[in-house]
Amino acid sequence: MSLFDQPFERRGTHSVKWDRMERYYGVSSDDGLAMWVADMDFKSPPCVRDRLREAVEHGAFAYVDPEPDYTRAIGWWMRERHGWHVDPSWIFTTTGLVNAVGMCLDAFTDPGDGVVLFTPIYHSFAKVARAAGRPVTECPLINADGRYEMDFDHWDTMLTGGEKLLILCSPHNPGGRVWSRGELQQAADFARRHDLLIISDEIHHDIVYPGHTHVPMPLVDRGVTDRLVMLTAPSKTFNVAGLHTGNVIIEDETLRARFAARAAALSLAPNSLGQFALTAAYSPEGAAWTDALMTYLDGNRKLFDDAIAGIPGLASMRLESTFLAWVDFDGTGMDRAEFTARVEQDARIAVNHGPTFGRGGESFLRFNLGTQRARVQEACNRLRDAFADLQ
Amino acid sequence: MSLFDQPFERRGTHSVKWDRMERYYGVSSDDGLAMWVADMDFKSPPCVRDRLREAVEHGAFAYVDPEPDYTRAIGWWMRERHGWHVDPSWIFTTTGLVNAVGMCLDAFTDPGDGVVLFTPIYHSFAKVARAAGRPVTECPLINADGRYEMDFDHWDTMLTGGEKLLILCSPHNPGGRVWSRGELQQAADFARRHDLLIISDEIHHDIVYPGHTHVPMPLVDRGVTDRLVMLTAPSKTFNVAGLHTGNVIIEDETLRARFAARAAALSLAPNSLGQFALTAAYSPEGAAWTDALMTYLDGNRKLFDDAIAGIPGLASMRLESTFLAWVDFDGTGMDRAEFTARVEQDARIAVNHGPTFGRGGESFLRFNLGTQRARVQEACNRLRDAFADLQ
Repeated sequence: MSLFDQPFERRGTHSVKWDRMERYYGVSSDDGLAMWVADMDFKSPPCVRDRLREAVEHGAFAYVDPEPDYTRAIGWWMRERHGWHVDPSWIFTTTGLVNAVGMCLDAFTDPGDGVVLFTPIYHSFAKVARAAGRPVTECPLINADGRYEMDFDHWDTMLTGGEKLLILCSPHNPGGRVWSRGELQQAADFARRHDLLIISDEIHHDIVYPGHTHVPMPLVDRGVTDRLVMLTAPSKTFNVAGLHTGNVIIEDETLRARFAARAAALSLAPNSLGQFALTAAYSPEGAAWTDALMTYLDGNRKLFDDAIAGIPGLASMRLESTFLAWVDFDGTGMDRAEFTARVEQDARIAVNHGPTFGRGGESFLRFNLGTQRARVQEACNRLRDAFADLQ
Repeated sequence: MSLFDQPFERRGTHSVKWDRMERYYGVSSDDGLAMWVADMDFKSPPCVRDRLREAVEHGAFAYVDPEPDYTRAIGWWMRERHGWHVDPSWIFTTTGLVNAVGMCLDAFTDPGDGVVLFTPIYHSFAKVARAAGRPVTECPLINADGRYEMDFDHWDTMLTGGEKLLILCSPHNPGGRVWSRGELQQAADFARRHDLLIISDEIHHDIVYPGHTHVPMPLVDRGVTDRLVMLTAPSKTFNVAGLHTGNVIIEDETLRARFAARAAALSLAPNSLGQFALTAAYSPEGAAWTDALMTYLDGNRKLFDDAIAGIPGLASMRLESTFLAWVDFDGTGMDRAEFTARVEQDARIAVNHGPTFGRGGESFLRFNLGTQRARVQEACNRLRDAFADLQ
């Protein structure tokens, strides 16, 4: 039995995923399965828990300066795991990557400037852009036999010149594409062609399955660094999203100065425990744990994909990254209300609804596989039963 | 021996106060005394540490929604300890109160709008205002025999009409005044007269010595709530500043909508452990601990004041609130370089320099008394020796 198979009770811990599923989806946590919010039902790695335990036993939670350990850990992780050199001076810490996007909108755009998204995409990007008064252009990805592809010829015709910023999700959520170097080069060219700043959200960069290689955007095209802002965080990899510690990494000096000015005016302050957790996570121990995690998630992914493949009308995109299965119900011939009701009410599974991810997500539901395999198996069984009439 | 007398080693814990004193003040932590940054050399109360220990033992640090416990705890504390009714819907959580001020500048003012400060005052307010491009008007408090008083007749002549926002510090840091209801009423009238929004930083509201009563601004004048934003945090009271969890509390619906819009556009996200800590702190256990803390700090304050009174030329303002002694060296006849050198190099005490607090702080140093009494005694001894020639 894997470490990750150990049962882990999250109900009653203020978990959004488990303790809010009934409120948001009408699925009781008594016998329902929480497969929505993108966190995992695993404890964080021992190195993280040990570090936090040490801080709690110390007992004062006062002002800390975690340097140079903190940025050194980030530098180590990016170099060792991603072959990417990050200078400590390039790093800003925010309260997570949606906050980072909000800060970028403030720092680099004006109200009315357009934001480009390749949809379907993580729902919070459009939400924060609209809240900031930046209109969103949803450039639809092509669903090529269950695999998202970029569509620059089409997208070139969609842009009006009022767009200032592209939020790239790499690897992509949902759908789990690890963009190839060639695709990323095309994205860089597209950004240059339309004079767009690129915000590259690479939060899933560690969650990459065997046979796929994530390429950090700055390694794709050195000519694009003067319009590039990188976003990374330990949140997904180490299940520490609640600590709200994400990093904005900016190599270009001019862009950096603009971001720094905004950060100073807002006096954003990273919390001590989040910084300690990140420092502990970005380590050899954290790396070994991540490797074990990926082996386990790969098993979950295969189990789930095989099961979904056995249900006529359902199609799960083959994940190259992320633990977030993206399932198309279009082939069922059912309308959205019906397939959603079957998942939520019959199978009693709380999932993310496709339309929240924007254009192209209409017939999809997103299933979070970051859980014990027995629970993934149970979800498969329930889905098979809920759609048994299609057999 | 009090709980607070227990020796507590903070060196080597990334503590700003202890591990950065040599870098910033040239005072080695080997035998130096850290009496600058406003945190305390005490463990947080057991209720806070127990709650954080529980969270660490649980082991997942994922997305949480701490409601309704979180806002209920805030409501309980404000009602029980301050007689102030706070509705849960009025509360926004930021990464501390300087961030809260930055958010208010964003939400309620435009670049170029003036900010009014009663100086000397906590240095970060002017810093964040200037970083946001808001010019600062420093209205000097009157030092009336070692007690700060407001000076509205003078201040009325200083304002130009371009000022939009007053940051009130209540109780006041430095100097430790607990403003009377009458003084606060005059501040409210001043704000109305000059059409200023009032940001009332009440972070020290729990650190009030016997014989003094803090009045929350909304209880002073109901007619001022339409121009009032309250800032509170558990940071000072419970020594949790590093968790960066502060609250902006806005009763007025229009102001609240403007702040909410900015918060949504920035997607600021409070961290889970900070919220858990606050929830545990704002409790009967936290209240009893605070009462014990205040008894202890009162002893420190008396010891320090008596010792300073025995050194000719030095004058410590009588603290009504805060653990931050504000000592005037004007009577020494020395220039700033000399009295500072005597404190830093001879007495080997790291302190905050008066001028950073703005106009009126020139001849002062700020000493943090939030530490073991033995250390306060040692500081007194060293100061007596360093200024022995004045005897």
